[in-house]
Amino acid sequence: MTIDVYFTPQEFLTRPPEGQFAVAVLDVFRATTSMVTAFANGCDRVIPVRTVEEALALKQSHPGALLAGEREARPIPGFDLGNSPGEYSRRTVAGKTIGMTTTNGTVALKTAEQAAKVYVGAFVNAAALCRKLTAAPLNIVVLCAGTRGLLTMEDVLCAGLLVERLAGRGGLSDAALAARAVYSDYRGDLVRRTMESAHARHLAAIGYGEDIGNCLRHDLFNVVPEFQDGEIKAPGA
Amino acid sequence: MTIDVYFTPQEFLTRPPEGQFAVAVLDVFRATTSMVTAFANGCDRVIPVRTVEEALALKQSHPGALLAGEREARPIPGFDLGNSPGEYSRRTVAGKTIGMTTTNGTVALKTAEQAAKVYVGAFVNAAALCRKLTAAPLNIVVLCAGTRGLLTMEDVLCAGLLVERLAGRGGLSDAALAARAVYSDYRGDLVRRTMESAHARHLAAIGYGEDIGNCLRHDLFNVVPEFQDGEIKAPGA
Repeated sequence: MTIDVYFTPQEFLTRPPEGQFAVAVLDVFRATTSMVTAFANGCDRVIPVRTVEEALALKQSHPGALLAGEREARPIPGFDLGNSPGEYSRRTVAGKTIGMTTTNGTVALKTAEQAAKVYVGAFVNAAALCRKLTAAPLNIVVLCAGTRGLLTMEDVLCAGLLVERLAGRGGLSDAALAARAVYSDYRGDLVRRTMESAHARHLAAIGYGEDIGNCLRHDLFNVVPEFQDGEIKAPGA
Repeated sequence: MTIDVYFTPQEFLTRPPEGQFAVAVLDVFRATTSMVTAFANGCDRVIPVRTVEEALALKQSHPGALLAGEREARPIPGFDLGNSPGEYSRRTVAGKTIGMTTTNGTVALKTAEQAAKVYVGAFVNAAALCRKLTAAPLNIVVLCAGTRGLLTMEDVLCAGLLVERLAGRGGLSDAALAARAVYSDYRGDLVRRTMESAHARHLAAIGYGEDIGNCLRHDLFNVVPEFQDGEIKAPGA
């Protein structure tokens, strides 16, 4: 078994993994953290869509659906939810279908669509995710959403945490070794050091500083959403 | 001023840097380490070529030239030099033109060709390289050669060392922060930990284990070769 990390979806497209693999898609700030939170709070399914127009069309075909997402990290006018995990409370999301469009997370999920298994991962479900990833005899690929083709620190850190916990289960690529080293260097002071990175600075500047610490909390939820046939569900959640 | 790191030439091609910049091309195992060593030992110029055929043609047009390079890390039949820095002694290279073709280093140099300044970097000339990079008011790009589109640990580590020394001179991208963190995590036990990575294991397996420690030595040479108009020279060396 092998464990590899891709820092961007673009890298995944230029050099797709070989063989059968399970992929963990990470968009820590904030799409996958919000998705995991939504399922932990009883949401029925999330349908990721690329554009605002597709989301609005979804609302037509699924009248009870909530629309969620962001552009440049800000809420989309007319949508029900933004991209802060705190918005995805049980009262709001239980039993609901959510149509979600985010700048990077949605793109990353659709990039990974052909994998044998596509899991939604974040710090908040890291432990449960590792159990899922090692349940089947598949190679493991961690796909960081990044932002517009750029690596983002928070996704690399989460990839590093996963590698640290999965090491011993398979051979580590150099990218996996690198992600683990970044996490190891940051772990003692994770929130403060992550604050130096580009996405965290942007979130703090536009008033979402609180999300940063929330998205970096480890192992809060025992739920691993899975993307299949265009929908995300969390079987058994 | 900004400081950015690209982990592969492929990434550089998909997302070229904006504005005017100086680029440091790193192929620590072993092309750029060998080039720096060659210039430290009085070589006149290195002409990087992509293919064995181009190298053989160069020998026709430059009868005194030495041919150097590797394929799959092994010497090329009929060439004068392989890719071990130890081969580039003063006795062998002083005053010579060297035509060099390597799997990744040559590609990386040609990828960066359009930059305002293209420097050849490695651990062995890191200090001198940092002085060059900060001498002009240009953004700094560190371009890792990687291997066939994959990040390689030794180049990330060297990029991290450069970022650590350059930090404070400009804003660091997340990739630059990540490279610095990897170096910081490995530095206390650099050679042993680098041995876990893919390229080092390959070199050790085929009998070039000695090169690994040699290529990881810091600041041996005060020479910074520069790539311009298809040739590498080291002005003032």
